[in-house]
Amino acid sequence: MGPKFSIEDQELLKQIMVHRRDIRGNRFTPEQISDDDLQQVIDAAFLAPSVGYSQPWKIVVIQSPATRAVILENFDRANASAENQFHGQRKQVYSKLKLEGIKECSHLLAVYYREPIGPVLGQTTMKEAGPYSVVCAIQNMWLMARAKNIGLGWVSILDSQDLNEQLQVPAGFKLVALLCLGYVDQFPEEPELKTLGWEQERPLSEMISFETFS
Amino acid sequence: MGPKFSIEDQELLKQIMVHRRDIRGNRFTPEQISDDDLQQVIDAAFLAPSVGYSQPWKIVVIQSPATRAVILENFDRANASAENQFHGQRKQVYSKLKLEGIKECSHLLAVYYREPIGPVLGQTTMKEAGPYSVVCAIQNMWLMARAKNIGLGWVSILDSQDLNEQLQVPAGFKLVALLCLGYVDQFPEEPELKTLGWEQERPLSEMISFETFS
Repeated sequence: MGPKFSIEDQELLKQIMVHRRDIRGNRFTPEQISDDDLQQVIDAAFLAPSVGYSQPWKIVVIQSPATRAVILENFDRANASAENQFHGQRKQVYSKLKLEGIKECSHLLAVYYREPIGPVLGQTTMKEAGPYSVVCAIQNMWLMARAKNIGLGWVSILDSQDLNEQLQVPAGFKLVALLCLGYVDQFPEEPELKTLGWEQERPLSEMISFETFS
Repeated sequence: MGPKFSIEDQELLKQIMVHRRDIRGNRFTPEQISDDDLQQVIDAAFLAPSVGYSQPWKIVVIQSPATRAVILENFDRANASAENQFHGQRKQVYSKLKLEGIKECSHLLAVYYREPIGPVLGQTTMKEAGPYSVVCAIQNMWLMARAKNIGLGWVSILDSQDLNEQLQVPAGFKLVALLCLGYVDQFPEEPELKTLGWEQERPLSEMISFETFS
């Protein structure tokens, strides 16, 4: 039957979710994550659901300064182009944001989706269920990292095709996320983009409806 | 700084992850989930990270038998076509699997991604970061459901374009998942596809590497 969890257990899980944050380079401390702690975060990935039990994830753990430099250069280029999509006041705010912790973090995790060779149960109609399984694994790691008082930041401002070439990634693998992991001086009270007023909290009425769409 | 979680807290989170299962119609009991419990599961979605704090999720809660029938008919068609992608012994096994709980579950959640109107911070380079945020929300719900001893099953064998028409979904919304929620007679010990030998557990050496891909 599996264990029956209590109301206290549910409340604890909620607290972990409430206090999970996206962490960038201005929050990481220089302390290294131990191999044991890193392994426990990564183990959480492999407890995620996957379509057809395909386990289509591949994680590359990176610490080398040379590889960090390559990734940071890729980010810088993508970010310069991203910044140009915003204008006026918003562009000014954007240009001052710290959006990655590639050099400052203890470990980088490059997380890939492995394309299947044959048909995968559950993935024959919606192909995207494959990468979605990898995202479930990332969210598991994010929560486990927070429970271990370790910060995690998801970097999505990357040219993944260029990065695949730069890191000599074999064919059949797709970058889902680059994650920065490390201890932090603090977990901010709320998402920075909320604090700054960049985006507001959406009203519930926009996010949920009953029986029909509106 | 946010709360500091303990080793016991980390172990509890791990247990919730370990015992989370994909639940289908052969495990759901007829008991209805209370509005309060349902709300707590859905609240967990809205605690998920989202690219640029865009909160691009929309959840439609469905109980109506008429809508269930439409969705089940869509599934049946997609599943007949999916079955034909397998052959011989595998096709026989596939045809006997129960892969959804559309009629048997207490509540269906149709979970959508809302496309943005302008550029979203963090999403300008990797567009898929938008739907990925919705998947993080789904994994939060999956874990919270398990902590509340509620089963959740993800149905991905659906023609989402047809379903959008059938359910009159407005333009700009993409189906990410259809989730079946309900109490269960048991949470199986391990994934059914593992028990059946449909897929094996992947060796760690295939799922993780250090510094380089191989």
